[in-house]
Parts: sequence; structure tokens; C-alpha cells
Amino acid sequence: MFQINDNYQKLPGSYLFSTIGKKVKAFQEANPDKKVIRLGIGDVTQPLAPAIIEAMHKAVDEMGQAETFRGYAPDLGYEFLRHAIVENDYRARGCEVAEDEVFVSDGAKSDSGNIQEIFSVDNRIAVCDPVYPVYVDSNVMAGRTGTYDKEKETWSDVIYMPCTAENGFVPEFPKETPDLIYLCLPNNPTGTTLTKSQLQEWVDYANRVGAVIIYDAAYEAYISESDVAHSIYECEGARTCAIELRSFSKNAGFTGVRLGFTVVPKDLKCNGVSLNAMWARRHGTKFNGAPYIVQRAGEAVYSAAGKAQLREQVAYYMNNAKTIKEGLAARYEVYGGVNAPYIWLKTPAGMTSWEFFDYLLEKANVVGTPGSGFGPSGEGYFRLTAFGNHENTVEAVRRVVSLAD
Amino acid sequence: MFQINDNYQKLPGSYLFSTIGKKVKAFQEANPDKKVIRLGIGDVTQPLAPAIIEAMHKAVDEMGQAETFRGYAPDLGYEFLRHAIVENDYRARGCEVAEDEVFVSDGAKSDSGNIQEIFSVDNRIAVCDPVYPVYVDSNVMAGRTGTYDKEKETWSDVIYMPCTAENGFVPEFPKETPDLIYLCLPNNPTGTTLTKSQLQEWVDYANRVGAVIIYDAAYEAYISESDVAHSIYECEGARTCAIELRSFSKNAGFTGVRLGFTVVPKDLKCNGVSLNAMWARRHGTKFNGAPYIVQRAGEAVYSAAGKAQLREQVAYYMNNAKTIKEGLAARYEVYGGVNAPYIWLKTPAGMTSWEFFDYLLEKANVVGTPGSGFGPSGEGYFRLTAFGNHENTVEAVRRVVSLAD
Repeated sequence: MFQINDNYQKLPGSYLFSTIGKKVKAFQEANPDKKVIRLGIGDVTQPLAPAIIEAMHKAVDEMGQAETFRGYAPDLGYEFLRHAIVENDYRARGCEVAEDEVFVSDGAKSDSGNIQEIFSVDNRIAVCDPVYPVYVDSNVMAGRTGTYDKEKETWSDVIYMPCTAENGFVPEFPKETPDLIYLCLPNNPTGTTLTKSQLQEWVDYANRVGAVIIYDAAYEAYISESDVAHSIYECEGARTCAIELRSFSKNAGFTGVRLGFTVVPKDLKCNGVSLNAMWARRHGTKFNGAPYIVQRAGEAVYSAAGKAQLREQVAYYMNNAKTIKEGLAARYEVYGGVNAPYIWLKTPAGMTSWEFFDYLLEKANVVGTPGSGFGPSGEGYFRLTAFGNHENTVEAVRRVVSLAD
Repeated sequence: MFQINDNYQKLPGSYLFSTIGKKVKAFQEANPDKKVIRLGIGDVTQPLAPAIIEAMHKAVDEMGQAETFRGYAPDLGYEFLRHAIVENDYRARGCEVAEDEVFVSDGAKSDSGNIQEIFSVDNRIAVCDPVYPVYVDSNVMAGRTGTYDKEKETWSDVIYMPCTAENGFVPEFPKETPDLIYLCLPNNPTGTTLTKSQLQEWVDYANRVGAVIIYDAAYEAYISESDVAHSIYECEGARTCAIELRSFSKNAGFTGVRLGFTVVPKDLKCNGVSLNAMWARRHGTKFNGAPYIVQRAGEAVYSAAGKAQLREQVAYYMNNAKTIKEGLAARYEVYGGVNAPYIWLKTPAGMTSWEFFDYLLEKANVVGTPGSGFGPSGEGYFRLTAFGNHENTVEAVRRVVSLAD
């Protein structure tokens, strides 16, 4: 008789955003007259930029003609896209990344869930706490996290690096030595980040202890301060210790278009085995490329027109971030929102994160994300995203502020 | 110090089609004047049907307007697509499949590589031999296959079910009891299939021994005979033992568009644990949906216009299959091509599969796929696909036949 992967049984509850979705749906059904504003899941609301729309129409037309039709894409992704990525995201910033170190994918969520596969199940992972749930959940499924403590809401074999107001949301080197270190910078969910020199310390630490940093740079387009690195490869020595994940979801609004990429430098090795070659094997065996049309859309992100239009889009969302942060600052303790599209706030009056979630949903009809959903150190915090439309964001802030009056 | 997943080191050579690609590239570079015809990889050549192009343009326009823009898709896929799938692929054939048993994905290659994740690493897999390499390779990566015997080209813990001319390409129940049985019907690479009553025997067997059948129906659109099942759920009892994988790559030419789906019935359980719930968790945690535009393209596959256009496309490829089969029949032993777009032939004069590959590439400038690349029982066979354009297919057949003169 077949048996299941028992690790799945260890997972407590469902995926965070599925739970929120169900709660909101139930509320909306019970209160059909209420206009709910969603600042919960980090989903964009602005339409795709004209340059991207134009590129997609062109690619669709190509797919309709025998002469220009494209079947299976090259394993790593089309050269036109990998070239644009390398030129714009890396060479322009003085980073050494080659085109065959870039693996185009259907998004950073898939990559961040799948990347652990090429590592031993005996490796210890370290995560910031709070953290994007996929890093931990995908390792639970793989059997890398030990047992779950329901009281503490922690896994016995995961190394947690608390990031709270007390340490300025800067993770400290853990007491136990990790093998894999997940860093998301600028950070989801706290909206904070590290300076380049703080990041350099992590690169040095990883090289020193023989750890790999899984560096999730999904929010790099929102960096506004000059002392923050856009890529981990801006740090010396990162090529021997870091894998970088990138997304088009937030810089170009591709949450429903699906495109991302992962950089695995050839200098990253374990006892002489190239992780680049391993990821190439995984990519070629269990994935079949992002759609041609979507890869052309990705290329348009790097065109002159695309860049100009997307700068405006990012500015639009960052204006929302400012609206939320400044609007709430007088009545709440608020963080983030300067180099990232997330505002992280302290829940008022000692409410738990989920209590505040229910309170906001019921009293203000505003949806946010409970900080505790991202890990135990997220308890007592709450995330609001800047990805709504501006009108709704202003209205949401008005409602939340009036609650505190 | 971090360690890698050692199972990757066990994989012999690279992914089959990558190897072929490299060989062909080298030949073409050495012989730039030769016109190589590719009937190797099962990639389509006909442009997308007009109904699909129209649907994609419409969806692209929607993504360019704030009112109709779509971000993250629902976890399982858009309801409009799952509804069309259930109505057309299942209810119309009398199969009981609910909309929340359908999981829309970026293609059957991803699903067939990922599905093993929800099973125990201790499960024994059984595969037809020859077989689509992804089934075995993804299990090697997961550590389910034991050690590799270079002489025999087999894995110690994999149960092989030879399918050769001797048994009419019908797998026999194995001596050892498997936990997971991979069946691809109509079959890649042999181009043959089972009758519905033969498939029913496999369903009965799986239920009897407590095995799960991973049923890959990627080629169902090519079925021309009435006693062949289009879905495993046409068989009684399949809901308690079978997962079905479907692809839009071959029925609608989506190899470069990327769309597929997996059906996990709620009746499929292990000690009370629902595999549907497990796959939902995997899907929601490590994947973020197929693009909206692509899901609309999938919906158009089921429109009246789409169906009519795709019937023609399938007929076009099956005409190629007939051309190859009839063209080679006088000089080669040929199989398949009636319910599938593949022709499977015996290599002549005792050549190995790779010898015949090199011979054909060099003498006829025709690319096929060596049967041994699909498993040891594929040795001495060779696969040609019907997915070329007709003119090239006719020319390839002429060249191959003239070699045998």
C-alpha cells in the first residue's frame, strides 16, 4: 500500500493567504453591503504598463504565424531576456553575473519553494522571524524542520533570527551555525532593509561558516536609499555563497503574468560540485520554461519606454506607502515603507495580530495581514501593503485612524 | 558547511533532450549547408489556432486596463477554465470529476515531476520501459530509486515493466508490488496504447494492491479508435486509485504557451488523508498559478471555434503520422501513429538506438530520438514525431527510405 509524504501532516493550518482569503470571503458574504478594502496580500492593482502590453500583443501575433511561432523555450530561458537581465540588473550595477547563471522561471514563489531541493535534507535552515511563509513551509514538506511546537509556534530544527523593533529589524548571527540562510531584502513582511555594509557582513559570515544565502530580492525596485544594495552580488564574495531570487511581480506588476528568475553563480560549489549545474538539471527536468509571450513581456520591462513607465508605477505605490505611514504615524508605531511597499505596525492596546485582523475587518472593513502569520516574532505586529489603488488606500487610512480616535 | 542533495549526483548524463539538442547543434555548426529536419523532440510546429490568438489578445487588453486587470490567480486556477475542463473533458465523457478536483498548472512536465513529492520516499515506483524520462529522473532526485546499474541502465529500486514488440507494448502486472505506477497513454514514446478494458484491468490491479496510478494523458487528443479511453476516470474505480495529468501542449500546440492540469479525486486517500488536500497545499505553497492570459487561451481551446480549429490541427499532425508510418512500413518495422503522434520503429541491421541516431543525422540529416534514451527496453528502437510541418515530414521520410535502398 502506498504511503504519503508524512511531512505534509506536520504543517499547521493552511497557507497564510488562503486562510485570510477564506475569512474575508465569509465576512463579505455575511456583510454584502460593506465595501472591504484589501491591503492584505501583496497583490498589485495597477494595470500592466503600455510598453508591456504592446510587447505581449506582438508576441501573441508571432505565435499565430507559422514563420514566427515558438514551441518549447530554451531550458534557461530566451537569450534575449537573460541578456537584458544581465545588462540591466547586474552589469549596470557593477555585478559579475553571466547569462548562463540566470534561470528564467514562472516566478519567485516557485523558485523560493523549489530551491531547497538541491540541498541535503540534513541541512539546517535559518530564517528571519517574521518571514515569508514559503521558505519554512517548503522546508517542512521536505522534512528539514523537525517537530512543531504548537505553544511557541516554532520548528525544532529551524534557526530563527528575530527581527523586531528592539533590534531595528536587523537579524543577528545565530548561535547555532546554519547551512542555508534565507534573507529577503528589502524585507517582506517588515518593509525594512539592511544597509549594504550590513549585508556585506552576512556575506562574510556565510563564507566563513560555509553557508548558502538564499537571497530574495523581490522588492529591489522599491529601494530609495543609496546605501542599500539592489543585488547581493554588489557585496564582495557573494558569488561563492549566494543564490539570488528575483521577481517581476512587484517591479512590473506581473503577479498575474508570472515571471521571475534565479541566479546561481558558477563559483558556488560544494566539494567541487557546481550548484549551477544542479539547478540547471532541476530546471531542465521538472520545469519547461516560462511562456514565450511572458518572456517578451519581461524583455519590455527593460526597454526605455518600459523603464520610464514602471518608474511611475513604483512611485505610485510608494506614494501609497507614504500615505499609510504618515497617516498612521500619529496613532500607531509604524515601520518600513521607505525601501519597500509594506508598512509594519505595532498592534494597539496589546491586541494579538489576529485579534487586530478581526477588529480591522469588522470595524473598518480593511484587510491586512496578521504579523504572527509570518512567525512568532511577528506577534503583536500587522502588515499593510501599498499595492492598493490610491483612492482606496486613502480611505483605508481614514477608517483605521478614526478607529483609534 | 552546507551539503547538497546527493541524489542529483546519481543521475547519469544530462536530460535526454538536452543531449540531443547539443549533438544536433554540433552537427549543424560543422555542416552549415545541410538542412536538418527535426523529428526528435515532441515539439509542435503549427501556429496557435485563431480562436486562441483572439482570446489572448483580448486578455492582454484586459491586463492593460485597471478595471479588468488581474493579479494573482485563484490557487486552483480560474473557475472559467476549470469549469470548461470539467464539462468538456469529463462530464461529456460520463466521468465524475468536480471543479475543485482540477488543479491548473504551467504544464504536465512540471506536474509529472512534482507529483511524487506528496508520496513517501519509501514508496516503490513502477514505470513502463521505455518511458518518458521525467518520471524516473524526478524520483531519482527525490531518492526513491536506489542505485544505478551502468551496465543494465536500470535503478535497483525501480520496477520496470517492459513494453516491446514481443508483448504488443502492453505492460504486464509486475512481480513485485509497486506503490506508484506511472502510465502514459496513449504512450510516449512508443505511440501505442491500451484498450479501455486493458486499462480497466490496471485500475482493478491498483485498487487491489493499494497502488496509485499516475496517469499521463497528454496525448489523448490523438486517440482515433473507439475502444480507447480518453480519461482513466472512464474506468470504474479510478477515483480511488488514480491521478490524471493533462497537457495543452499537444492538443492545442501550447508547448511554448505552458498550460496543463492535474486531477486529484477526493476519493483518493491514504489512511484517511486526502491526496486532494495535500496537492492543494503543495500547489498553494510552491506555485502561484498559470498566467491569466494563458488560462484564457486554455478556455478558448474549449470554445466551438477553438474545437473546430484544433480538430484540424490534430488531423494535420496525424496525417504526418500516417505519412511516416506508411512511408517507412515497407523497409522498417513500425509501430504507433494511430492513437498518438509518435512512430516507433525498430532500428535496422542490429544498430543500437544511438548508432541509428548518428547514422540518420549524418546520412539523412534527420533528427529522431534514440529509444534507449527512454529506458533499456527502448534499445534497438527509435522514435519519430509527427509534429513537424508536412513538407519537412515528407522530405524526411524520403531521405530515410532512400538510406534503406
